[in-house]
Amino acid sequence: MFLSKLIPPEDAKKIIFNHLKAPSTEIVDLEKAYQRVIAQDVTSNLNSPPFDRAAMDGYAVKAEDTFGHSEKNPAQLKIIDIIGAGEKSRVLLKKGEAIKIATGAPLPSGANAVVMEEFTYSEGKHLDVETSLVPWENVSPVGEDFHKGDLILEKGKILNPAELGLVASSGLDRVSVFKKPKIGVIITGSELVMPKTNLEGAEVINSNFFTIKSMIKSCLAVPDMFHAIDDASLMKDMLTKLLNDYDAVITTGGTAISKGDVVVDVANEMGDVLMHGVSLRPGKPFAFAKIHGKPVFMLSGFPVAAMVQFDAFVRESLHKMQGLQMKPLTIQKKATRQIASTLGRTDYIRAVIEGDVVRPLKIKGSGIIKSMVESNSYIIIPENTEGIFEGEYCLVLPYQSLKA
Amino acid sequence: MFLSKLIPPEDAKKIIFNHLKAPSTEIVDLEKAYQRVIAQDVTSNLNSPPFDRAAMDGYAVKAEDTFGHSEKNPAQLKIIDIIGAGEKSRVLLKKGEAIKIATGAPLPSGANAVVMEEFTYSEGKHLDVETSLVPWENVSPVGEDFHKGDLILEKGKILNPAELGLVASSGLDRVSVFKKPKIGVIITGSELVMPKTNLEGAEVINSNFFTIKSMIKSCLAVPDMFHAIDDASLMKDMLTKLLNDYDAVITTGGTAISKGDVVVDVANEMGDVLMHGVSLRPGKPFAFAKIHGKPVFMLSGFPVAAMVQFDAFVRESLHKMQGLQMKPLTIQKKATRQIASTLGRTDYIRAVIEGDVVRPLKIKGSGIIKSMVESNSYIIIPENTEGIFEGEYCLVLPYQSLKA
Repeated sequence: MFLSKLIPPEDAKKIIFNHLKAPSTEIVDLEKAYQRVIAQDVTSNLNSPPFDRAAMDGYAVKAEDTFGHSEKNPAQLKIIDIIGAGEKSRVLLKKGEAIKIATGAPLPSGANAVVMEEFTYSEGKHLDVETSLVPWENVSPVGEDFHKGDLILEKGKILNPAELGLVASSGLDRVSVFKKPKIGVIITGSELVMPKTNLEGAEVINSNFFTIKSMIKSCLAVPDMFHAIDDASLMKDMLTKLLNDYDAVITTGGTAISKGDVVVDVANEMGDVLMHGVSLRPGKPFAFAKIHGKPVFMLSGFPVAAMVQFDAFVRESLHKMQGLQMKPLTIQKKATRQIASTLGRTDYIRAVIEGDVVRPLKIKGSGIIKSMVESNSYIIIPENTEGIFEGEYCLVLPYQSLKA
Repeated sequence: MFLSKLIPPEDAKKIIFNHLKAPSTEIVDLEKAYQRVIAQDVTSNLNSPPFDRAAMDGYAVKAEDTFGHSEKNPAQLKIIDIIGAGEKSRVLLKKGEAIKIATGAPLPSGANAVVMEEFTYSEGKHLDVETSLVPWENVSPVGEDFHKGDLILEKGKILNPAELGLVASSGLDRVSVFKKPKIGVIITGSELVMPKTNLEGAEVINSNFFTIKSMIKSCLAVPDMFHAIDDASLMKDMLTKLLNDYDAVITTGGTAISKGDVVVDVANEMGDVLMHGVSLRPGKPFAFAKIHGKPVFMLSGFPVAAMVQFDAFVRESLHKMQGLQMKPLTIQKKATRQIASTLGRTDYIRAVIEGDVVRPLKIKGSGIIKSMVESNSYIIIPENTEGIFEGEYCLVLPYQSLKA
């Protein structure tokens, strides 16, 4: 079934997301879990910190012993022990006593504050405290960060540095993460060749090989790249094999809407083409199919159209296929010039954020890959808008925000 | 030499950046260059596209033959050849003729436009063209993207998907990139242990191992992790070895300002401590030294202080050490509540961007790693500001913008 009507991108996403398979999980060492998506809620096994600890180098004391004291009228205490980092005092601190303590060491029993070294003067076992402390001053109390049994991280978050530190602090050294989706990519086009400087005849360099492969990596998925000439029978064989070996297939080229085109024709023969043509510019000739139970994303052959389609539909799908919940940050900026659009069509305009304003690039053609390099963001003109006036606020999606 | 005055972060950065070594380069296959920093200006060896090419599937024609024609009054042409993708016609197209052409194929000699298939009707060799074309309609002219000899990418840019596609299109299959800096990390603290749930005595989990290691990876540098107990002699041996083996060393812990502390003391003995103490909160006890000609970044032992110091000083340094020029995107948002600060101090407040506003988290203590997970940005209060009023615009740095 071919759909003749162009589908709005938001509706297209809903259809696609309904056909993605729930991700499976695996256990990995926390050390190897950077940028993996956690597949379990993490409940802490420990208090953090695990005990009342000194937040400064100095002396553990009873705050009451220092009340009202100052540089001119120091409290006079007796040093009864020394606790280095990694050590724990077995001595009970009593009134009038002090214990030398290193940052991070457990506060000794009986103490309720730490005086910083620079507010003291010591000679042998004698200590002058030249300040007045409040109880728990310079102490990080047990469980200040989180308590044993607290839910500290929810399933679906990406393990960035802070998350890894937090999970480690909870006592876990192995975690359950979602498997990375394996993506088979078929770049179609008999004319495509790998980079070389002596092009012959109709040869064109296969830049999609490089852009699509690295875009998949930027989604933390695992690409394997294949090239196909424009032949329906070979395409069918390759697609069959890849659907067997991979979690999803992405193709480029052969998606023209006006007529039968090789990739969409083959997809239609093998499974359900759920959309063909979206109201997106650039990127109209996008198709999506479910074949042998797996998602097949069919992108344009034109490099920029393919990249926009990837950002609009594939990126979030690959995130979902590894359980990642992520909403890219968008911002509002004033446009430096008018941008024309059409009701019923969503535009992704390559643009440059320049301080308080955003400058849409002037480009024609969806093959102008240089424009993707010169821009750092998309201005998104939604379908219910006819365009943006000069100086009007518009929705800006920095490329940087797209990356997982 | 110990500096007693706290150094403003902006001045600290200038000092640090003056002591970083220029990066060396290596040649890599373009296929393996994703997220590497390019070390050469790229001048194209080719025109892109390499020839006038069909931008649509249809028929190559002379536009003049279609002038004034329409569905009711089609131009009548003779089909003289077929050009598939990857093929090139050797036939010269003359007045009254058409050549069937696939998207991407070279426009045959004599043609100056392509009519889309849906505006035609064909029967055998006969073609009706039911529209009027302007010259070069549906043609991507040679060099539309860039010309042979054009400077298409400058040294110092990171090779993201679009950059890879662009470089490929220019004909290059190998590029010169900056070497990734190798970073030796010494986590100090006798009390630190790897994650486990049965902590004993004064043991504390070494969360810095996980956060610092992955932060270095997020800068596209290569970390190697070591642990040291708080002992000056062992520290000196380890630092000596690491300065020999790595491009830079990062330490955590042992940087207390008030008194001599093990890491800074050892650094002072071995080389030049160029700063010790910055007017940054959290993160005041930061030190930087040049030892044996190499940079040594000394961070706090407290996880959040260490992370803020990393973001404020180390991240950009590691970028510079691989030749990367990058300015993170900052935005202005209204604060949901008042934030107190002090003149002469820069504050990095962990915060959550929520639509049009930014919500500063309420935290005390620099060890609260959960706050880094719950936040998605820093509010930066510059040193010349006493704070921010509720509803006032403030400078926001999304964590996402920090990543290379």
